[in-house]
Amino acid sequence: MKVPLVCGNNYNITILRDNIYTMKNIALIGAGRSSSSLIQYLINNAEQKDLNIVIADREIGHLNDIVGNSDRVEQIVFDVFDDDARIALIQKADLVISMLPARFHIVVAKDCITYKKDMITASYISEEMSALDQEAKDAGIMLLNEMGVDPGIDHMSAMRVIGDLQEKGAKFLQFESFTGGLVAPESDTNPWGYKFTWNPRNVVLAGQGGAVKFIQEGRYKFIPYHMLFRRTEKLEVKGYGSFEGYANRDSLAYRSLYGLDNIPTMYRGTLRRPGFSRSWDIFVKLGLTDDSYTLEDSEELTHRTFINKFLAYSERDSVELKLMHYLKIDQDSDIMSKLEWLGMFSDEKVNLKNATPAQVLQSILEKKWTLEPKDKDMIVMVHMFGYELNGKRELITSSMVTMGDDQTYTAMAKTVGLPVGIGALLILDKTIHKPGVHLPVTKDIFVPVLNELEKFDISFTEEKGEYLGYML
Amino acid sequence: MKVPLVCGNNYNITILRDNIYTMKNIALIGAGRSSSSLIQYLINNAEQKDLNIVIADREIGHLNDIVGNSDRVEQIVFDVFDDDARIALIQKADLVISMLPARFHIVVAKDCITYKKDMITASYISEEMSALDQEAKDAGIMLLNEMGVDPGIDHMSAMRVIGDLQEKGAKFLQFESFTGGLVAPESDTNPWGYKFTWNPRNVVLAGQGGAVKFIQEGRYKFIPYHMLFRRTEKLEVKGYGSFEGYANRDSLAYRSLYGLDNIPTMYRGTLRRPGFSRSWDIFVKLGLTDDSYTLEDSEELTHRTFINKFLAYSERDSVELKLMHYLKIDQDSDIMSKLEWLGMFSDEKVNLKNATPAQVLQSILEKKWTLEPKDKDMIVMVHMFGYELNGKRELITSSMVTMGDDQTYTAMAKTVGLPVGIGALLILDKTIHKPGVHLPVTKDIFVPVLNELEKFDISFTEEKGEYLGYML
Repeated sequence: MKVPLVCGNNYNITILRDNIYTMKNIALIGAGRSSSSLIQYLINNAEQKDLNIVIADREIGHLNDIVGNSDRVEQIVFDVFDDDARIALIQKADLVISMLPARFHIVVAKDCITYKKDMITASYISEEMSALDQEAKDAGIMLLNEMGVDPGIDHMSAMRVIGDLQEKGAKFLQFESFTGGLVAPESDTNPWGYKFTWNPRNVVLAGQGGAVKFIQEGRYKFIPYHMLFRRTEKLEVKGYGSFEGYANRDSLAYRSLYGLDNIPTMYRGTLRRPGFSRSWDIFVKLGLTDDSYTLEDSEELTHRTFINKFLAYSERDSVELKLMHYLKIDQDSDIMSKLEWLGMFSDEKVNLKNATPAQVLQSILEKKWTLEPKDKDMIVMVHMFGYELNGKRELITSSMVTMGDDQTYTAMAKTVGLPVGIGALLILDKTIHKPGVHLPVTKDIFVPVLNELEKFDISFTEEKGEYLGYML
Repeated sequence: MKVPLVCGNNYNITILRDNIYTMKNIALIGAGRSSSSLIQYLINNAEQKDLNIVIADREIGHLNDIVGNSDRVEQIVFDVFDDDARIALIQKADLVISMLPARFHIVVAKDCITYKKDMITASYISEEMSALDQEAKDAGIMLLNEMGVDPGIDHMSAMRVIGDLQEKGAKFLQFESFTGGLVAPESDTNPWGYKFTWNPRNVVLAGQGGAVKFIQEGRYKFIPYHMLFRRTEKLEVKGYGSFEGYANRDSLAYRSLYGLDNIPTMYRGTLRRPGFSRSWDIFVKLGLTDDSYTLEDSEELTHRTFINKFLAYSERDSVELKLMHYLKIDQDSDIMSKLEWLGMFSDEKVNLKNATPAQVLQSILEKKWTLEPKDKDMIVMVHMFGYELNGKRELITSSMVTMGDDQTYTAMAKTVGLPVGIGALLILDKTIHKPGVHLPVTKDIFVPVLNELEKFDISFTEEKGEYLGYML
């Protein structure tokens, strides 16, 4: 449909400026907690870019505060497994954004290929998604993934520095990268320095599913899950204090992804406040994070009888003493005070039927680690690049800290949603056009996205120093 | 074919005595390390019972010393997945013994149903096997499983005591059962008190595949794999010294199997010499028993560089010091001397391509834990039954120790093979006849088998004492 080029109101001015003659339909499928900033970004650009946004979610209404009275947004109740509804939605769209849980992207992606629609996700490229590359190319559409924060901003910000240094001829010695979703300093009111700012289940299960792999000074290193939280690295972020990082699953795969195949040190990790991991390790060691079997009597458990299931039987000894002796914890250690603060030894009921140990642990943690109404979250990302250039060994540290505004526009929602939204507009206005399955590790994508992110105070501070070698 | 009843030679006397008029064909499929005593037992009974034994294995020849010049035995080269050969063999048999790896029993079992032949295995009843129960009943044949030592003799010897006490009206308070395949005291020449007397791979992977579950004084208890070797029980066997037991996977399932549904304490474990588990725990903690991924550079590894993969990088510190510090091991502890004795820190090459950590560990252990030509093995089994009878609380301890004769007729071969062989003859002469899928937990099976085992010095010593309650 052509729109007549009549000046004099905003609507048509926009059309003139962008040289676009039709309204663009965006289908946003799945609109959970992290979609607030994405929706806000799309709405804020809707007039200028002439967007129509259909938000398709299992329920509607929870987004009313975010959507406001925008006449650019339509909300529909939607089931991704209703084929007719899904196909109708995708057929009408110019671009599809899937913010569904990662395992559901594939059904949407297949329709996008059939109906030749570009698509964006914030999730890791699955094997199934990767297998669609040729079909997407043949259809002339782009399936752009890993456009959130981690994965997403981590790739883009790292590749900007790496690409720049590679152009100058640098030889890489070390790349380390850490990201953490934490509570903002002003809301950090407990001895763990932690509250759930993101899916609690993922936090409880973090690190499971295979040994951690990385490389240090040319030596492959492996850490089994049960030792993961005892092998942390310390780091400082100017103005934000100290953190510790534990290793992420497989850092090795990132060598080829980032074009750093021969780099002797490659390590990716997750950030926590110091002391967190040492105490979390107690849960791992006891077996409380196990999600592989259910406790038949979980409904009758208290916090105390739950923890006692993982300790030896005794007619006399207290749960506390048995635990301290079993895992060699001092009575006056910060570990015991953290456990006590959580109420791990209390007689409070669990009230969960047929739950796994991990589910029971999660329910106990949720009683204490849930954000208060005024609490804000924080995303911290730190990269360290060690390299040799013109005979000099240097280290660039690049860091980003983003604070949430409130519990709607959280740091997580901003850093996940904004890159997705920015990517969507860049695809719609053809700034990015690259058929196939992609992630943002190339300049054509990360330069415009990172530039736009800076307008939202999502930016990196770089510091350069001497590279002193790798000491852990 | 009827045989005329003519007396005057052994052959016909036998026939008269057993009231059997035809020769019986036994098909023994799979004849590995543990089949020596089984074959010997069948041969020794062949004349008297008029048996013809076909040994079908992937290779023949390795059994020549055992088979000798018996004209009752035929050896054939056999592939269980060659349908024609398998069906021909089973059709000709009166009874089939499968000593194949457990996962291959099912294909044999299905043919046994089709051709209406009884079958015996020494393996746990798999879900697939269990599902054949009705078909086996309809066919009128018996699929008798778990006829080895563990599972096998453990069931039979436990059920004899349990059945006896239940008939008297005892109320059970505790059942604990431990089995260990170890080296005989005279061959126990290393600080671990251990050599491989059975499949080394199973020893390296022992305890993996799910949390350990048991019940103590009515409380369900769970141990994750990575803590399994730190939660041992000590026990003494008169005349054989001290042992320690670590828990087996799922003890809970045995409650209903043994008719002890409401028993407050049920624990099954594996025996080692004291101190073994504490040191083995180091391998588990480091991640050396992980079989889930391969080490690309395993071929270039030495024992020392292998262990270093699981330790932090350092430019200066030794592998030994890093290990001791990481896992809090004292320099003068028995743990370090055990590791040093194994050569864990040596520069010896590994020489394995694309091996998993577990495979590398196994290859290192095999250099030291392999039996010397004159070494003998030992099977130790201990049951403890706590119960209340006529107002008195008593504890019966029942224990069995069997020594190997040499490296052919090992304790393992005897205790696995003899119950299978005995069961075979009991089925052939109709002492046992019970269509369906079974294991030896009923009197009709375990009484005649245990009685016959005593002739081979496989017998249990019982001691009765006061039950003092459960202390761990």
